[in-house]
Amino acid sequence: MQRDPFAAHADPAPYRALVRPPKSRYLEVIDQRALPHALVRVTIGDAEAAALAIRRMWIRGAPLIGAVGAYGLALALDRDASDAALTRAHAAIDATRPTAVNLRWALDRVRAKVAPLAAAARADAAWLEADAIAAQDVMINYAIGEHGVALLRGIAQRRPGPVRVMTHCNAGALATCGWGTATAPLFLAHAEGLPLHVWVSETRPRMQGANLTAWELSQRGVPHTLFSDSAGGLLMQRGDVDVVIVGADRVAANGDVCNKIGTYDKALAARDNNVPFYVALPSPTIDWGRANGDAIPIEARDTDEVLTIAGRDDYGQTIRVAIAPHGTKAVNYAFDVTPARLVTGLVTERGITRASKEWLAAMFPERAA
Amino acid sequence: MQRDPFAAHADPAPYRALVRPPKSRYLEVIDQRALPHALVRVTIGDAEAAALAIRRMWIRGAPLIGAVGAYGLALALDRDASDAALTRAHAAIDATRPTAVNLRWALDRVRAKVAPLAAAARADAAWLEADAIAAQDVMINYAIGEHGVALLRGIAQRRPGPVRVMTHCNAGALATCGWGTATAPLFLAHAEGLPLHVWVSETRPRMQGANLTAWELSQRGVPHTLFSDSAGGLLMQRGDVDVVIVGADRVAANGDVCNKIGTYDKALAARDNNVPFYVALPSPTIDWGRANGDAIPIEARDTDEVLTIAGRDDYGQTIRVAIAPHGTKAVNYAFDVTPARLVTGLVTERGITRASKEWLAAMFPERAA
Repeated sequence: MQRDPFAAHADPAPYRALVRPPKSRYLEVIDQRALPHALVRVTIGDAEAAALAIRRMWIRGAPLIGAVGAYGLALALDRDASDAALTRAHAAIDATRPTAVNLRWALDRVRAKVAPLAAAARADAAWLEADAIAAQDVMINYAIGEHGVALLRGIAQRRPGPVRVMTHCNAGALATCGWGTATAPLFLAHAEGLPLHVWVSETRPRMQGANLTAWELSQRGVPHTLFSDSAGGLLMQRGDVDVVIVGADRVAANGDVCNKIGTYDKALAARDNNVPFYVALPSPTIDWGRANGDAIPIEARDTDEVLTIAGRDDYGQTIRVAIAPHGTKAVNYAFDVTPARLVTGLVTERGITRASKEWLAAMFPERAA
Repeated sequence: MQRDPFAAHADPAPYRALVRPPKSRYLEVIDQRALPHALVRVTIGDAEAAALAIRRMWIRGAPLIGAVGAYGLALALDRDASDAALTRAHAAIDATRPTAVNLRWALDRVRAKVAPLAAAARADAAWLEADAIAAQDVMINYAIGEHGVALLRGIAQRRPGPVRVMTHCNAGALATCGWGTATAPLFLAHAEGLPLHVWVSETRPRMQGANLTAWELSQRGVPHTLFSDSAGGLLMQRGDVDVVIVGADRVAANGDVCNKIGTYDKALAARDNNVPFYVALPSPTIDWGRANGDAIPIEARDTDEVLTIAGRDDYGQTIRVAIAPHGTKAVNYAFDVTPARLVTGLVTERGITRASKEWLAAMFPERAA
């Protein structure tokens, strides 16, 4: 286990999506494309590798993308700390993924810290700032967990049996520097002995639910059941879901939530069945400059992600298989926007608030100004 | 091409889900599990094979299940036409799939025809009655198509460009004896030169959209695009869908629609975005004895359908791969119920009607009594 400056709040999980070994000038990440069939750790030793890791989705999840982006800028400055290099590296890393706002937030934060410094001092300062971003993410995760677990305790008091939580995609420890966002309440609840059952949507096309969330829950011993995305509505219709908790890639100032494709469908089903629908998010995910979700850029990814699926064959090898006739066209939008009207509450590090401009601004007055 | 007693209304497609060669005492069906990667035709020569073909889903789709079930009863009577054998075969075939109501309807219809006859006359009468059920299904498909194509013409008149239709699962010619139900309006529209674009949901877990609907549309040259089930809501949010048309496995007397899992989610998204949502169904799909959809039995299938996916590997072979960690639990409900309140209209062989007890009864007064 890594030593951790915030040990009291550190995630005790046996895996960590991002590690910077003490005093090192490189990162170790899990290549999440190989999960759950293999646990592959890769070393990221330059800014190009950091950008590639984000673009190719070795790592993903808005908070983790932000942290890896910040370290990527530090890696770039290790090689060349000139103004031109800083501008170039910031732009190159920022261009890797268009939807998550944490990436730009983290890059801007590092740049603001190092830009006023002499070139010789910039790299060290960037590493320190990236460390601070990663450590802060762990603290934010933990705080989200504490606020969210209170919700789950409330449900447990109202009915017998395990609290049945549905989640979508992976807003887990693998999407952050520890604990996760949507999963933080689950992991804290499980740690305190609250009986839980988690409904895990497989999350086509990339299967982050089946590949990552199911793996995380199994690593931590949390009871869970996998379902095809289309079954979300029926499970709520049957009364088998107490609450939905998902993460977010970007939240507009009015509370509209951009998150993994399929989140909107689940929010509609939750409303139709009176199931509370919560979004867990660290405040760097809020795009204060965007009034609503209408114009959030939605990333369209390679259609091979829809036309093929990776899985484990009978020999334990991970291979891709094609599901459609040769020559089939596909569309692959990675995110959708859930209107604030469908969101019961936003679970942030400062507490739970309504998904509205007024309530968000009241919780983060210094940002909403 | 088969000769066809209803040639004027016969589906001109280069494939047919079910063929009884003239004067034969066997069936030829397509083993749909192999599509789209291979076109495998199998001969069904006894009632056990017919039951297996339904249970193991070599063939599927409510109307096709009904026809194959009817022929299965004829095959059983070829071997033993006693009362006891009739009862046994009826029960065995009826037990293969619990949700579609056409199967029971077709079996009852054959039994009612042959039960009053002397044993020696029963088998021939059963074959004739099964032929009549199959021929009637083609006529019903065609009539559904004619009513549905009028809807599409109306949309084409209101806006330029192709009519953009979303469908779910496969309610195609492969689900019937020809034309399909939800696809009949599309195939007739395409034949008359109306520009169309079809959004095909992949339809996890069994991928009938990616495997079957995409294949049928490509065989017929109808433009189409595949999407992961979770993207249905976003496509409607973007304004890229003019109308949704799906099939049905069972419709209650009040218009509640039991259909492939995920239909309900798409109906919710359609309502939230003011997209008309139609269900195409032959009247044998209506369960007049069931007041609403609440108690329709929902088949729970083998969870391996969720935990693994079949596809084509790099060598052109169809193999199954596992998508989740070893030991993951899954749930696999095959259908959900879309409440009548979310259905814009039911497209039947007699015309388009509202999804309500009164309107359905007015259209089929002799059945609703």
